[in-house]
Amino acid sequence: MGTYKIALLGLGTVGGAVAKLLASTRDECAIRAGRPIEVSRIIVQDPSRPRDIPSELPGKNEIGNDPIAAIKDPQIDAIVELVGGTDLPRQWIRLALENGKDVVTANKAVLAIHGEELFQIASERGRNLYYEASVAAAIPILQVLQQGIPAGPVDRLTGILNGTCNFILGRLEELSFEESVVEAQRAGLAEADPTLDINGMDSAHKLALLARILLGCAVPIEQLRVEGISGLTPYDIEFGWMHDLQLKLLGILRRNGEGTSIGVMPCFLPSSHPLSSVRNEDNAVLLEAEPFGSLVLQGKGAGGMPTAGSVIADILRAARGDAIAYPISGPVKKIMDPGEVPTRHYLRLEVPDRPGVLARVAGALASEEVGIAALDQPEILLSMTQEVSIRILTHPVATTRLDRALSHLDEDLRTIAEPVRIRIEE
Amino acid sequence: MGTYKIALLGLGTVGGAVAKLLASTRDECAIRAGRPIEVSRIIVQDPSRPRDIPSELPGKNEIGNDPIAAIKDPQIDAIVELVGGTDLPRQWIRLALENGKDVVTANKAVLAIHGEELFQIASERGRNLYYEASVAAAIPILQVLQQGIPAGPVDRLTGILNGTCNFILGRLEELSFEESVVEAQRAGLAEADPTLDINGMDSAHKLALLARILLGCAVPIEQLRVEGISGLTPYDIEFGWMHDLQLKLLGILRRNGEGTSIGVMPCFLPSSHPLSSVRNEDNAVLLEAEPFGSLVLQGKGAGGMPTAGSVIADILRAARGDAIAYPISGPVKKIMDPGEVPTRHYLRLEVPDRPGVLARVAGALASEEVGIAALDQPEILLSMTQEVSIRILTHPVATTRLDRALSHLDEDLRTIAEPVRIRIEE
Repeated sequence: MGTYKIALLGLGTVGGAVAKLLASTRDECAIRAGRPIEVSRIIVQDPSRPRDIPSELPGKNEIGNDPIAAIKDPQIDAIVELVGGTDLPRQWIRLALENGKDVVTANKAVLAIHGEELFQIASERGRNLYYEASVAAAIPILQVLQQGIPAGPVDRLTGILNGTCNFILGRLEELSFEESVVEAQRAGLAEADPTLDINGMDSAHKLALLARILLGCAVPIEQLRVEGISGLTPYDIEFGWMHDLQLKLLGILRRNGEGTSIGVMPCFLPSSHPLSSVRNEDNAVLLEAEPFGSLVLQGKGAGGMPTAGSVIADILRAARGDAIAYPISGPVKKIMDPGEVPTRHYLRLEVPDRPGVLARVAGALASEEVGIAALDQPEILLSMTQEVSIRILTHPVATTRLDRALSHLDEDLRTIAEPVRIRIEE
Repeated sequence: MGTYKIALLGLGTVGGAVAKLLASTRDECAIRAGRPIEVSRIIVQDPSRPRDIPSELPGKNEIGNDPIAAIKDPQIDAIVELVGGTDLPRQWIRLALENGKDVVTANKAVLAIHGEELFQIASERGRNLYYEASVAAAIPILQVLQQGIPAGPVDRLTGILNGTCNFILGRLEELSFEESVVEAQRAGLAEADPTLDINGMDSAHKLALLARILLGCAVPIEQLRVEGISGLTPYDIEFGWMHDLQLKLLGILRRNGEGTSIGVMPCFLPSSHPLSSVRNEDNAVLLEAEPFGSLVLQGKGAGGMPTAGSVIADILRAARGDAIAYPISGPVKKIMDPGEVPTRHYLRLEVPDRPGVLARVAGALASEEVGIAALDQPEILLSMTQEVSIRILTHPVATTRLDRALSHLDEDLRTIAEPVRIRIEE
């Protein structure tokens, strides 16, 4: 086998890190791949801008702005898509596979939305579509799920899949939500528009890709309960501390006899939980299976270099011709709402500071038989407002039932702010 | 590709679990392997003893006691060696590879000692020798090192590689060393003769296999500093608590410009360290690399089912024909003693309760310029003895230098018990 020639689409944070790492580890890459790896083309938006391409990067490194020309170049063996977005990458990946090329991508969105189509084309054309870097950056979680463990027995997956949200929740110990987002942006973790991170959709894309491997079928995003972290405050974190609970945005998968509960929700975890100590922009995945007990993988979930490491591992796999075990496209399985599984919940209400309010809240909860385990109204010193926070710890109840109870609250108890309710996963 | 036929050598804890898991996941195994997996032969010492072989286990399951006949059987594609030991397995693995069979083994000792020879034969014969289950049972650490991450940049590896020792160190919080060993035996974790666990040699075997992949050359066990956990007491654990330190038996690999420090030593870890919270018989590996930050993998390090999961992942790889990236047999690299790297140390001395003893201890330490950061002599209520424990926290110093200082201690300060000294890794 001769030299393996790749085209890099994109030379941003991840693309630049891939170039740097390929240059600094070129000899070892060649040994591991069994053949030299060369970067023939680099596609960027503006080729005239000066770029810092490492001089040791093997290959021609021809800079251009036409991805289609690179994809159709018969000299090129693989396309490495590091641009992001969904529509254009979908076209590029499609065209690359149709032109007999392998594809490596770090793009979770395009696969979570158009994965069925793209995996199908890869399979028909006998090419490989590698996407390790698209989930949990530095953690080789796809490889572990596909090959490292027998998947059949994995009946629970719990993941911190969005480094930006984890960073924001950590900062929320001291800052307001808005200030925490600004900090994340300053740290280079959050986009100028961090909506997809904060609303849980990025976590949902990643969870859908993991679930697809575990279930052996497509997992349509629109069937999942997806909740984000906006609206959370330092008060909520503080309540967690009082009860030895840590707040995390979790992707959850639970199999049982009837189907599989899958969703993304902010959850409190007891401090003894293996994911409760995951800090900053780290990601982590906990796999639980009856045969092998629990397995935890933890590492950087964002950033150029952590992502580049997984991209290069995929490039080496592609150069060796390692076929990846595709998620089997079996019939779509029954997807259930994790909110149907009863757990304790934390609840915060912002209500008018008037007599009788507590009785009305308790009444609304009682209407759906939601039991109250603990309750407090934090004293606000020098409070000039006519409002008060009520924080409640419930007995185990389904989130769906709790939401019904909350919908029975009178209008005046909901207008100051929407109630915040958070599941407590054990 | 037709059915993939294997012979199981051994039907003990691991062999039995492999049979059980293969039976319960047979359909998924066939899908993942791309072909059905069958167990043609099962080799045990006493075939006449009744055995509980699952009725769904695919294949003939012919029971015999002649491993050579199984190895030479032209119908069989792979030998799965789950017997343990070194001399016989070495012969079997050798013969199996020479007879054109793939081999899957969970046997760390045979590979740590005879790996060069066996990897060489596998490479010459174009067969594969898979050994994921031999290191850290349920954790797919070999696969992650070989394929999941670009190996070049990994410059530090820290591992809890022996579940039995980790279990014993946990029990040592409440029990004596001897009682803790008995508990481990009762839990089915320690052998009747737990010497290889306790003296660190089992950890050293596993560390050598990991180091071999990272360095791309053989790592002769006899060149490594290997220290075990015997002689440690609840006093030592308690001292750790006072200073927020957890006691673990660690396999350590540190690369620097000159070479690589590799060794096994009991170490204190600060509570903020990612491995400090690894409990019971869990194993964990922390990989650190400049590009991707740190990656932690944690899971069950012992037991039939956790080991069987990795054995089956290897069987599927073998059935798919996935070539494993062999550790490159380059020239042996410079191996250094991790004890040469200065760290803080904990020191416990059992000395006669006489005036002047402390001054003599301090004098011995001063002779090698070992600085004392803290010192205590735990009061022993109702003590009838003429002895006292001195516990010392040193400033950073190489273990080798500290050992020189301790060798300057007068004879009467060492006769009650050998001094205990433990590195504090940060």
